Amino acid sequence: MHIDELPTPALWADLHVLESNLATMAKLLPGNRLRPHVKAHKTTALARLQYEAGHTGFTCATAREVLGLANAGLGDDLLLANETVDADRLTAMAKSEARVTVAVDSEATVDAAAAAGIAECVVDVRVGFRCGCEVSEAGYLADHARRAGLEVRGVMGYEGHAMGVVDVDRRRELVRAAMERLLQAHEFVGGDLVTGGGTGTHAMNTWVNEIQAGSYVLMDTAYTEQVDQPFKQGLFLQSTVVSVAKKFAVCDAGLKAQGMDHGNPSWGEGEILFCSDEHTNLVPQKSLSVGDRVCLVPAHIDPTMAKHPLLHLVRNEEVVDQWEIDLRHW
Amino acid sequence: MHIDELPTPALWADLHVLESNLATMAKLLPGNRLRPHVKAHKTTALARLQYEAGHTGFTCATAREVLGLANAGLGDDLLLANETVDADRLTAMAKSEARVTVAVDSEATVDAAAAAGIAECVVDVRVGFRCGCEVSEAGYLADHARRAGLEVRGVMGYEGHAMGVVDVDRRRELVRAAMERLLQAHEFVGGDLVTGGGTGTHAMNTWVNEIQAGSYVLMDTAYTEQVDQPFKQGLFLQSTVVSVAKKFAVCDAGLKAQGMDHGNPSWGEGEILFCSDEHTNLVPQKSLSVGDRVCLVPAHIDPTMAKHPLLHLVRNEEVVDQWEIDLRHW
Repeated sequence: MHIDELPTPALWADLHVLESNLATMAKLLPGNRLRPHVKAHKTTALARLQYEAGHTGFTCATAREVLGLANAGLGDDLLLANETVDADRLTAMAKSEARVTVAVDSEATVDAAAAAGIAECVVDVRVGFRCGCEVSEAGYLADHARRAGLEVRGVMGYEGHAMGVVDVDRRRELVRAAMERLLQAHEFVGGDLVTGGGTGTHAMNTWVNEIQAGSYVLMDTAYTEQVDQPFKQGLFLQSTVVSVAKKFAVCDAGLKAQGMDHGNPSWGEGEILFCSDEHTNLVPQKSLSVGDRVCLVPAHIDPTMAKHPLLHLVRNEEVVDQWEIDLRHW
Repeated sequence: MHIDELPTPALWADLHVLESNLATMAKLLPGNRLRPHVKAHKTTALARLQYEAGHTGFTCATAREVLGLANAGLGDDLLLANETVDADRLTAMAKSEARVTVAVDSEATVDAAAAAGIAECVVDVRVGFRCGCEVSEAGYLADHARRAGLEVRGVMGYEGHAMGVVDVDRRRELVRAAMERLLQAHEFVGGDLVTGGGTGTHAMNTWVNEIQAGSYVLMDTAYTEQVDQPFKQGLFLQSTVVSVAKKFAVCDAGLKAQGMDHGNPSWGEGEILFCSDEHTNLVPQKSLSVGDRVCLVPAHIDPTMAKHPLLHLVRNEEVVDQWEIDLRHW
């Protein structure tokens, strides 16, 4: 099927770009130097390609991502990089065939993990603005976890506040400050793992021993503004023009088809005015007709993937396959 | 099951509020004075309650919504209130058991509908900022549709730019100006239907003969700021505190669990700092502990419903049922 025959809105990946991004990363951060973050794509079939590229451990944001990879036989080493006290989900992960490590940042999260039979954890240290214990609490928490019977594999710290910073020097400075805190905590905690980082900091975060990047596989407009990114944009949202007015046109891919938290999508052939539920209003450089195709570039890959049941795979404008985005929801 | 036993994030509706909103609307706009918009909830089970309340015609945003209602036996009179030139979807709608009317605003959309065997249309007139033909084109387009063999049932105009305006007088003025354009077009087009409006304008839009409100069933924070709204907030997002820092707490419902296009969710017991993929950072008025429940109020019902596979029904804090949100995607 030609890409223009896809019913719209349709999310698609450029297979050539996807393969190139996978190969580039496998050279830059080979094997377990990368622990790919599944939250970016939530797609088992894509995780399998990352596994085959040599990255056999994964980072997950939800228990559903962990259990999905475990059931697919990709459970060599799964890190749930978020805290949870959900006893049922912790128990399900503990009983899975996979090696599961969970992030903890409080006595309550340690105790919930231990009670559910989880065997291993990392101490999540607050180096950004979200979860994590203070550096000064990390040693105590590691001791508490060991007393509760958990193996403490090391520390985790996600410098999310640095991730999207366009200026390279400023970004590096934020990473350095955050990672100094993480290494300080590591001295108190011990263990082999120092895990953190993301696509925005994959090259400059030399403090951790594994990077949790996910977006690199298909990218989005936020990251492609960073001049030091070797990865190419590979995720697109195909739409059809359904209405043409004097000064603008309207296509059938709106905010229900893409994440809006990083702003409007991009479009190479004109200006984006705004998105509504099922539409995007555009000012085209050359006039458009009803039925013409418009290919948008989503601003944020993670929530965009989470809104679609299917990802279409395209090579040279031909749709050659489709993957179920099967690890969505919770 | 008590509501606090739901695995989180969990979307739930207060059944008492839902029933009250349904009853209030059935009094204000009885029978076919209301053509409920399914895009707000995308849930066949909820559409059935609206049908049983006397509103036997529905407004739909997507072919999937039309076909879902048709298959569920709720196809007395379905209006696809958006333009499409998708031949397969138009054909599927034409072949369904339902009475299907589509919106058209160009020769291309008329021709696509006629070619697919669609029998009826309304002329969509641009009274706001999205789709619709000019008033001056409406008569020609109606003639073109009739020549193509379509029954023209009337005109449609959606005053979306007025919908969220908080000031009542300003909102009424915007509605009046928009509806004068619609009635002008109706003179050229003819037909019985003059359809438009929404929850924000359901009481003041006295120009149309049917109102396309959808959000009224469960509401969201945008609409509840309007002092003239008789409907109550009934949609909530249950979350669990997973991390507590000195100055804030973090719960496990983020931007993948709610629509962000109308801004952050609301919370009665403190301040919302920001949402990330799977988390919301909060400053609570009273200190929170890990494991505590936090109930957020989503800012925009439509995209929030579209992100969840299930809606839980709650009465007096007991989860008494769950509905599949089955009309999502396209």
